Amino acid sequence: MIELDFSKSADGLLPAIAQDWNTGEVLMLAYINKTAWEKSLETGKAHYWSRSRQKLWLKGESSGNVQLLRAVLVDCDADTVIYKVEQLGGAACHTGHRSCFYRVVDGDTLRVEGRPLFDPEKVYRK
Amino acid sequence: MIELDFSKSADGLLPAIAQDWNTGEVLMLAYINKTAWEKSLETGKAHYWSRSRQKLWLKGESSGNVQLLRAVLVDCDADTVIYKVEQLGGAACHTGHRSCFYRVVDGDTLRVEGRPLFDPEKVYRK
Repeated sequence: MIELDFSKSADGLLPAIAQDWNTGEVLMLAYINKTAWEKSLETGKAHYWSRSRQKLWLKGESSGNVQLLRAVLVDCDADTVIYKVEQLGGAACHTGHRSCFYRVVDGDTLRVEGRPLFDPEKVYRK
Repeated sequence: MIELDFSKSADGLLPAIAQDWNTGEVLMLAYINKTAWEKSLETGKAHYWSRSRQKLWLKGESSGNVQLLRAVLVDCDADTVIYKVEQLGGAACHTGHRSCFYRVVDGDTLRVEGRPLFDPEKVYRK
């Protein structure tokens, strides 16, 4: 198993960038600990550490929008990774947008680009 | 000035992903504090907070490989940004590689892809 340098951050978490394996679009950034990293490599599905819920998070466990790993890249310092993924369900963001990065800086405002692909209230049943 | 949620991390730093504005290649990930964020927007050049040197860092200040901001994206939680950049000098990584993500997980090893575009010893004079 490839070792990452989890000592680089105060909380032991490292950023993982999920990027569409085909188009190169950055879909989201979330955090991994050692368990999430190992689970991702073992299963071929992106796992993260949820900072809000403080638990291991299989991306798509609620929405079904699982991310299949097509390649995994490690940076020069072994403290950031890229998951090149096939995004099932079309959208990575909990807002229903394809990418979490759907807002562009436009002077002093944020301009929303594109429209949600799903309705979060229907996908995440409360 | 667009406000980010710097309270989201223990150390007050947020990740900024530098992505080639043209090809979509992810070049590097580094961290920003409020000053680095504001300096980036004000000057149109990517600034970060260097965790190793504990100082504001204009990317390219040593190497000349400045990153010109072509667009700036903010994620759904306002705690991660993408700098879409024109990378001067061709390479973003201190190793001389175009991208810091030049290693691909291949079973239990990391396979290096591509070759350095410059010799770090010549660019970073010690």
